Amino acid sequence: MSTPSCTSLRVRYAETDQMGVVYYANYFVWFEIGRVEFLRQLGFDYKRMETVDDCVLPVVDARCRYKAPARYDDVLLLETRLIAMRSAVLKFAYRLVRSESAEAPAQSLAEGETTHVIVDRHFQKKALPQQYLTVLRANLARDVPN
Amino acid sequence: MSTPSCTSLRVRYAETDQMGVVYYANYFVWFEIGRVEFLRQLGFDYKRMETVDDCVLPVVDARCRYKAPARYDDVLLLETRLIAMRSAVLKFAYRLVRSESAEAPAQSLAEGETTHVIVDRHFQKKALPQQYLTVLRANLARDVPN
Amino acid sequence: MSTPSCTSLRVRYAETDQMGVVYYANYFVWFEIGRVEFLRQLGFDYKRMETVDDCVLPVVDARCRYKAPARYDDVLLLETRLIAMRSAVLKFAYRLVRSESAEAPAQSLAEGETTHVIVDRHFQKKALPQQYLTVLRANLARDVPN
Amino acid sequence: MSTPSCTSLRVRYAETDQMGVVYYANYFVWFEIGRVEFLRQLGFDYKRMETVDDCVLPVVDARCRYKAPARYDDVLLLETRLIAMRSAVLKFAYRLVRSESAEAPAQSLAEGETTHVIVDRHFQKKALPQQYLTVLRANLARDVPN
Repeated sequence: MSTPSCTSLRVRYAETDQMGVVYYANYFVWFEIGRVEFLRQLGFDYKRMETVDDCVLPVVDARCRYKAPARYDDVLLLETRLIAMRSAVLKFAYRLVRSESAEAPAQSLAEGETTHVIVDRHFQKKALPQQYLTVLRANLARDVPN
Repeated sequence: MSTPSCTSLRVRYAETDQMGVVYYANYFVWFEIGRVEFLRQLGFDYKRMETVDDCVLPVVDARCRYKAPARYDDVLLLETRLIAMRSAVLKFAYRLVRSESAEAPAQSLAEGETTHVIVDRHFQKKALPQQYLTVLRANLARDVPN
Repeated sequence: MSTPSCTSLRVRYAETDQMGVVYYANYFVWFEIGRVEFLRQLGFDYKRMETVDDCVLPVVDARCRYKAPARYDDVLLLETRLIAMRSAVLKFAYRLVRSESAEAPAQSLAEGETTHVIVDRHFQKKALPQQYLTVLRANLARDVPN
Repeated sequence: MSTPSCTSLRVRYAETDQMGVVYYANYFVWFEIGRVEFLRQLGFDYKRMETVDDCVLPVVDARCRYKAPARYDDVLLLETRLIAMRSAVLKFAYRLVRSESAEAPAQSLAEGETTHVIVDRHFQKKALPQQYLTVLRANLARDVPN
């Protein structure tokens, strides 16, 4: 497993539903933020990846296991790791934790994975350009005990 | 005022928030559906308008007045009218009503307006093509007492 | 596998992203609509289930495999089936298909599953009331070749 | 006009649409974040306001004027001010600016207002508790040239 990136999020009112907790689809919006931050922390800008390098990363598989509900105004930490890659496929894993507060210890809320293919703007498969492959492979190799 | 189009919507769980009612930004998503249906009922396909005619309709002003909350699973009727136009500007008005049910009479929930400019895909202003202008002007002229 | 329910959806502009296709998290919003319609077609009203029977169905696991992108204004068919149940757990499967059109044959776009526990409004686990269990078990037993 | 609060936001991929810019309804989600931060900077926690003080602030009027599109990954500054209040009504104004970057100077993207009534959890109108009135009135009085 690679070195994780860590992103902080605060739950928005719009993200709750009438159950009084965050609507389940919104976790996948957060995962998106996590992988963009993962790339940013390696020196990559996903916006440039799309516009300059013509690489788009559509999701082909997404999964989330929900352990405890996230609630309005919670401050959350999202850990994102690269867990597998081939030249045209990337797989990320996510762990969402509620930050420790005066009232409660840190708590694991959800875990998930997403798998992406690399395509150009016309949705034709392509390999990631070499500069990404090199850095991502080095990150993936840096095994860290979890 | 032009002849309105009428669209039916059912409130989605994802559209509610922890107040137990529909989150206020979602009414603008519905207004979008209303104006696309308005165009469709005049024989126009907004998808083709973007791809074939290179006309995009970004919003420059949007407003909504909320009178009573919409709730999960409510069946709503959305009336959409064209209320003003110039060659490169369109203004729509919306009225959202909860359908009559066994438990309750029809109720007006919200009213709003959106103003749009016509631009091409590079966000350069342009006039609406003639085929749209002709039909929209005829619709606008068809004054109906409200 | 149980008898599926079938729901029709039209892709909203708000559901697209700058890749020009539907944003991946929105498929889970559609799955929600599918399971509510599944229940409705069995005679159940999810709104009453929450308010009258104090049964809420939070998701504990959600997955989607994306095969081909859904696009703005596409008319989609969503098949929803109950694929497993215990007294306090329900598992649904979904298949999303683009309706056949003049330009293209029907195409399978995505498949997914969600697993739900039954809880009361205070998030305490409980069993589904008997009237639901009876009907859902009968539906689950009605094996249909897929 | 009151002293503004200032909130920083980064545009999410999920917030874009196929026009390649932020979908117009999402500005109202940001306004929500702005007013919660405005309250926080005065020492109030909107979550507690709902749960402890039984004060909910539904929107009765919302408006936004869009001047230039916000784009994916933009870093935005949102200024929020209280511009009017009565014991049971609050009115906020918002100004959204794109932060200055190496490529571009700061740019005003949108301006808006929202009007809220104060209600309890059963949607019955009530006055804001005294501790809020005192602080908000003081803030409103602190006239600053804009």
